[in-house]
Amino acid sequence: MPTNKAITKRDNDFAKWYTDVVKAAHLADYSSVKGCIVIEPNGYAIWEKMQSILDKEFKRLGHVNCQMPLLIPESLLEKESDLVNGFAPEVAWVTEGGEKKLEERLCIRPTSETLFCDYYKTHITSHRDLPKLYNQWCNVLRWEKETRPFLRSREFLWQEGHTIHATKEEAEKETTQMMDVYHWFHNEILAIPSIKGKKTEKEKFAGAEYTLTNEALMYNGVALQSGTSHYFGQKFSKAYNVKFTNKENKEEYPYQTSWGTTTRMIGGLIMVHSDDYGLVLPPRIAPKQVVIIPIGKSEKVIDLAKSYQEKLQSEGIVTYIDNTEKSPGFKFAEAEVNGIPIRIEVGERDLEENKITFVRRDTREKINVSLNNLDIKSYTKSLLETIQKDMYNKALKRREELTFEAHNLKDIERILNTKPGFIKGMWCGDEKCEEKIKEIKGCKSRCILEEEPIDSVCVCCGKKAKHFVIWGIQY
Amino acid sequence: MPTNKAITKRDNDFAKWYTDVVKAAHLADYSSVKGCIVIEPNGYAIWEKMQSILDKEFKRLGHVNCQMPLLIPESLLEKESDLVNGFAPEVAWVTEGGEKKLEERLCIRPTSETLFCDYYKTHITSHRDLPKLYNQWCNVLRWEKETRPFLRSREFLWQEGHTIHATKEEAEKETTQMMDVYHWFHNEILAIPSIKGKKTEKEKFAGAEYTLTNEALMYNGVALQSGTSHYFGQKFSKAYNVKFTNKENKEEYPYQTSWGTTTRMIGGLIMVHSDDYGLVLPPRIAPKQVVIIPIGKSEKVIDLAKSYQEKLQSEGIVTYIDNTEKSPGFKFAEAEVNGIPIRIEVGERDLEENKITFVRRDTREKINVSLNNLDIKSYTKSLLETIQKDMYNKALKRREELTFEAHNLKDIERILNTKPGFIKGMWCGDEKCEEKIKEIKGCKSRCILEEEPIDSVCVCCGKKAKHFVIWGIQY
Repeated sequence: MPTNKAITKRDNDFAKWYTDVVKAAHLADYSSVKGCIVIEPNGYAIWEKMQSILDKEFKRLGHVNCQMPLLIPESLLEKESDLVNGFAPEVAWVTEGGEKKLEERLCIRPTSETLFCDYYKTHITSHRDLPKLYNQWCNVLRWEKETRPFLRSREFLWQEGHTIHATKEEAEKETTQMMDVYHWFHNEILAIPSIKGKKTEKEKFAGAEYTLTNEALMYNGVALQSGTSHYFGQKFSKAYNVKFTNKENKEEYPYQTSWGTTTRMIGGLIMVHSDDYGLVLPPRIAPKQVVIIPIGKSEKVIDLAKSYQEKLQSEGIVTYIDNTEKSPGFKFAEAEVNGIPIRIEVGERDLEENKITFVRRDTREKINVSLNNLDIKSYTKSLLETIQKDMYNKALKRREELTFEAHNLKDIERILNTKPGFIKGMWCGDEKCEEKIKEIKGCKSRCILEEEPIDSVCVCCGKKAKHFVIWGIQY
Repeated sequence: MPTNKAITKRDNDFAKWYTDVVKAAHLADYSSVKGCIVIEPNGYAIWEKMQSILDKEFKRLGHVNCQMPLLIPESLLEKESDLVNGFAPEVAWVTEGGEKKLEERLCIRPTSETLFCDYYKTHITSHRDLPKLYNQWCNVLRWEKETRPFLRSREFLWQEGHTIHATKEEAEKETTQMMDVYHWFHNEILAIPSIKGKKTEKEKFAGAEYTLTNEALMYNGVALQSGTSHYFGQKFSKAYNVKFTNKENKEEYPYQTSWGTTTRMIGGLIMVHSDDYGLVLPPRIAPKQVVIIPIGKSEKVIDLAKSYQEKLQSEGIVTYIDNTEKSPGFKFAEAEVNGIPIRIEVGERDLEENKITFVRRDTREKINVSLNNLDIKSYTKSLLETIQKDMYNKALKRREELTFEAHNLKDIERILNTKPGFIKGMWCGDEKCEEKIKEIKGCKSRCILEEEPIDSVCVCCGKKAKHFVIWGIQY
């Protein structure tokens, strides 16, 4: 049975719809380990494609990959107090190993700033050793209470970039540059229109001087933090006593950054693009871009399917033929629930009429295409690009419909009581106002935009507004 | 200073030479976490290349990647008794999470058979669900007492393949096929001549019906297990109650395999090929294959270097130009210690004489090449292939020199007192004889070859020999 029959309607119960899509498209499943998921092949293939695109871009910008240990000794973690306070409540501790109680507890890394600092300490002495531009792809663990596949799970996969520089300017440039990479990746590859800005002091990463963030809006109007880039200044290098001799031959503390994205992006992809029929994937991130489904087993049908596959593959379009024993209807539904961007149906009867059928996953539109003068490569390529663009525009339209302006607290309350979304609200910069706004259904500052405030007064206290802030309810 | 000055001579102190090479080539370093290493960019790049080649081959053979949780609940681990007994002494336990003591201990995976079985249980019901051909790239942890970078560390990176089949034949075919992949990878890519065979009952993987192994011999005559492939039969499916309905509509336990290779292969690469000047990498696994070092800054030199780089890159040969501020001598030494297979020196004076210099890392031979009619692409390509072949042959010759025949225990003793190596010794099949042989300097059975015994009697007890066994001291 086509599994998409079992998917809850998105507009009826968004949370249930989400987990239904995750399961129906075989992206992930629950495991016997509370709060940890199994990332199934369909889900992992998306992650692999995310990795390959991001990794290539990181390397183009001069970063190199490495691998730090999974475990952090408690004494090492404790050196940077903000970080400890931020992460201590949500780490898991290894206390026994090799049938013995350990002398010191080791935590499973929730993030690896401490390990990188420990490494820098013995590997950086001179300005000639700088900058170091590292990244690692790994698993991390945070002991979350409420968990949901991809969005929030105790263990997740991510990349964490860690860089260290001789000057403030260089480190800040890196922080901005990597935020731009995440922004580009979401907009251009994931077709998720997103906004970038700065986190408030309250919402920034534990231990950072400031945090840049990329924020996306899900179909249901809830915000998802989608990539963050932190500027640490000299905070960590002071805490971990990392020093270098600068060009003037003076000892100085270097400047650090870190930046990361996670398997959470798979959750974002689902919640922005998918529908009642299952997963919908933008072509640029779809591990399989085209499925050819032969209807009937005539030689003519099979030969055409094969020749199309070859031609498309030669163009770099990942194409497979579904020649399993299932019925065509089952195959159609399966391709649909799995989010394959284009389905090409090649049937005997169609061939007699000199045509084939293209089906777009995003719009579910069926397109009869005449075989006369059909250039399968350029037609498919251009259709994939159209789908990518249309998906972005559709998501952008949705976001615009769900972006509201608030001029006072009542506005925020009214908006959140109707439907959530991005709320534009000017802010004086006082954390008390931020806390007051949070009391309304947990509405948090998403980010401070670069733009000047468009109201003169704070949405909360009515005093002079300093910042243009996007507010919203978050995952 | 060129770091290779600090490398201990290989023939003086092999163990120290090994760690010197690891450090000098910046492959890995110790961390603050006892028994866990930092894999530095140069080491990680080798792992990435290993991953990309193996992963492509796994996928070509129909496998898909996925990701199981890092943690295993104690109750789940305990279901298969051989596995528990095998791994219990060397696991690390998480006992606290989110500031609370856990109700059940969770171990950090030492291997993931249990997790895969737990997953199969709810995802396999019919023969139509079979086979499942999974693989995962991940970190695992084993609480080793003695550790050495890459060879034996508490945490290491690996791939673990896990497959499940409807028939014994299919599962056994998979077990053999994946051993063949490892064997091919070592011989053809890593230029490590290796032998494959079956582990004895004593040496097989905890929980396996049998284990196939790929065994390599290091420069110092010590053996390194280099890839294993396990056939489980129905052992795990019975222990974890995984069942399916076969084609005859009867309930049956499916047949499983698992197979793995690890970052240990980086250690093998070093110990087979490297020398007193640092790392030596076979071209097919070298992340950087060619370095061009311009001597002087004349336009002619720089232009030629750039044009060569472009041409070689277009041929798929990974090439970089070292145009840092260091002296040519320093650059030569650095390329050498890092094991770059070919160094091309482009100097002004040489250009006047219409020549450039190629330096082979494996033989350190300098080759003056006339620019008349030089096809840089085909010349370099063919030199890389020559290096690959020569390195394999050199390693094979060394292995042959260190392969001995033993006809009785005295022979084994004499061989191991002179120099260790692969020892061909026939065996009756009695574990008591195996244990007796192990008493000689810890000499273990490496594998049982497919060949018939060449002696008629057991090397230990003198009774009828059943198996042709390779024995040796192991890492």
